[in-house]
Amino acid sequence: MTEDIEKLTQSLAKKAHSASRELAILDTGKKNAILGRIAELLEQSSDELVSQNEKDLRNGRENGLSEAMIDRLALTPKRIADMTEGVRQVIALPDPVGEEIERSTRPNGLEIRKIRAPMGVIGIIYESRPNVTIDCAVLCLKSGNVSILRGGKEAFHSNLALSEIIRQALVENDVNPDSSALIPTTDREALEHLLRLDQYVHCIIPRGGEGLIRFVAENSRIPVIKHYKGVCNLYVDSEADLELARKIAINAKCQRPGVCNAVENLFVHQDVADTFLPAAAESLVKEGVELRVDSRTRTILEDSSGSNGLKDATEDDYHEEFHDLVLAVKVVGSLRDAIEQVNRYGSGHSDAIVTKSEEHANQFMEAVDSSSVYWNASTRFTDGFEFGLGAEIGISTDRLHARGPMGLRELCTYKYHILGTGQVRE
Amino acid sequence: MTEDIEKLTQSLAKKAHSASRELAILDTGKKNAILGRIAELLEQSSDELVSQNEKDLRNGRENGLSEAMIDRLALTPKRIADMTEGVRQVIALPDPVGEEIERSTRPNGLEIRKIRAPMGVIGIIYESRPNVTIDCAVLCLKSGNVSILRGGKEAFHSNLALSEIIRQALVENDVNPDSSALIPTTDREALEHLLRLDQYVHCIIPRGGEGLIRFVAENSRIPVIKHYKGVCNLYVDSEADLELARKIAINAKCQRPGVCNAVENLFVHQDVADTFLPAAAESLVKEGVELRVDSRTRTILEDSSGSNGLKDATEDDYHEEFHDLVLAVKVVGSLRDAIEQVNRYGSGHSDAIVTKSEEHANQFMEAVDSSSVYWNASTRFTDGFEFGLGAEIGISTDRLHARGPMGLRELCTYKYHILGTGQVRE
Repeated sequence: MTEDIEKLTQSLAKKAHSASRELAILDTGKKNAILGRIAELLEQSSDELVSQNEKDLRNGRENGLSEAMIDRLALTPKRIADMTEGVRQVIALPDPVGEEIERSTRPNGLEIRKIRAPMGVIGIIYESRPNVTIDCAVLCLKSGNVSILRGGKEAFHSNLALSEIIRQALVENDVNPDSSALIPTTDREALEHLLRLDQYVHCIIPRGGEGLIRFVAENSRIPVIKHYKGVCNLYVDSEADLELARKIAINAKCQRPGVCNAVENLFVHQDVADTFLPAAAESLVKEGVELRVDSRTRTILEDSSGSNGLKDATEDDYHEEFHDLVLAVKVVGSLRDAIEQVNRYGSGHSDAIVTKSEEHANQFMEAVDSSSVYWNASTRFTDGFEFGLGAEIGISTDRLHARGPMGLRELCTYKYHILGTGQVRE
Repeated sequence: MTEDIEKLTQSLAKKAHSASRELAILDTGKKNAILGRIAELLEQSSDELVSQNEKDLRNGRENGLSEAMIDRLALTPKRIADMTEGVRQVIALPDPVGEEIERSTRPNGLEIRKIRAPMGVIGIIYESRPNVTIDCAVLCLKSGNVSILRGGKEAFHSNLALSEIIRQALVENDVNPDSSALIPTTDREALEHLLRLDQYVHCIIPRGGEGLIRFVAENSRIPVIKHYKGVCNLYVDSEADLELARKIAINAKCQRPGVCNAVENLFVHQDVADTFLPAAAESLVKEGVELRVDSRTRTILEDSSGSNGLKDATEDDYHEEFHDLVLAVKVVGSLRDAIEQVNRYGSGHSDAIVTKSEEHANQFMEAVDSSSVYWNASTRFTDGFEFGLGAEIGISTDRLHARGPMGLRELCTYKYHILGTGQVRE
């Protein structure tokens, strides 16, 4: 069994590598034709997909999955239509492959062109939501990359059915069906083998919970681009427009608290804390937010009407991605102090300053070590669509290669084409 | 002892991480002042450096190092002057930090600026040449990155003395001396610990032999940018200018055979093999090149005068980085065949086609999966200076983050500054 899984994984990765040469040079029209066919097949197979998904839902219920998990797992006709629409959006995006990034001519006449090129083979490791299968395969295909998909066991039947659609679209377009492969087992051993096949696989993107990402990062011999948690921070500066700060705090915390670009910590400069905190706390509590506060915040709020249900914040609270209507609050002594707090507790995802001072804003944006630093706007905008990149494969919390939202371009590497007329080196 | 080494490494990495916040926002003038002081101190300390290096040379001779190794290890007044000149060249290069890469304004008025930013802490693992200590520390400083240097045991005393100069220059400029640190032990255990400290170190760059690079790649939890071997290829197409091809072959093989961008394999289209090979072989043999050939090449050369001393090529020969005046030769049936051979045997470093056909050239440049693909020029130009990047930290054979020559810009990541006027997400 163990040996079989090793052989299976190795063979799949080897075939993927071999398909990658062909996919890398496929023209845009052909790639879009494949995506178009995937969209059609998704529409036509809606009933069949729902029925395969039923098996996963049944298993999930038997295994006691929470209602939230069951909801994430479910494929409905509406969700299938949304997936289809997502595929059509990727068709409309420009093909990143072959884009000229830079060009220079050297004194010896050599013309050096820096050209965007596919990475090759990308392994995507994800958890329960089956739409990830289509999203990731489609983004990889458009960027000329072969994808090896390894979904969660909860969505196994759904993923197999979706993968079969991708395979059919490839075959019907006379393209090697190994250009997108689902590992047909959710055995952890297969994942462990995959992570060691650096001769065939060029990049691993794990999408999921902290445990999965840690496991992948610790066991991979292949470069990993982590899509890690978002502990995002909002700092209200001494020079802030306080009404604007209040609106941004509400939006960044409450508009969709379960996502990675929602704020978890609010830092307030001591000079404005007496005015800002009572008004902000009142609005936040009205939205159902639980506040976990330091002692200075508690003192201020206890003197106002907003003190109901305050909890004392622990050190751990400031490190926590709540994924919920919970906000940790702290009063800080200076801009410098705020920057230190943000760098200490944040996960390098998205952080914001509210201030009227350009100098303070620039200091904050330069010194805060995050992928996305906002001045007078909600952190909720960290997203491929909002940044104008189109559909995203995720939001990288790493620094190498891609940082922040990863779209089609970020799924590519580059290469140099050097055009000469017989130049040799002296 | 083991525990001490773990503590030492951890403490050094933690201090480096803490220094990185400060270094990342240091202005260009200050960074150049530090580099200027390093250059001065190198000049002033020439005698002392030579005498510290003497200890390493003495140990090396006692331990039976080859003359080639002893030569690489030696610091002479001339080499120290070259190092100093190298530092001054880096001072003259533009500061990559803060460069605006892209800017866009979204429909909602958010202005999104993509800004080059230091990675943070970079670990550099290298072998015997002590000048790497200065080269790498200086490139890291200029790009706002803290460096953790881990040199080879052969150069231990030389590296300590050079590191002390960097430290002095930092202190004299009131900059945290932890901004560049040499691990003060060459115990392999320290390296193993370092490679697991992903909470403090953001990138590892190994420079050295295959064994070192494998060890680092397999043991690192931190992202690694490999500077691996160069198995470079030259393909002489059916449409080649054969005299130009001959000159490029001589240059790419003979001008400096010990470096990574020299060619190791020559592939010749069958339509021109009869004409090209005898003339090329004569010139190559005259330059002292040993040819390892396939049977078709042998047949052609045995019919001409260039057959003396031919060796039959083994399959391994085509995978080998000879580092010497040795060239593997093979006749190929088509452009497609040539592309397959190059992708099979090459290490993705530098490959060239000689042809008058633009169509063939474009096919080759697109389909060959290498960092640098040349049309009618020698592969020997793959180099940071030749590409106009300035001094390089090495040539990446990886795809993620940096591919090909890595200069100051490639030592950086980027971040987004997003400027708003109170935007919140609907």
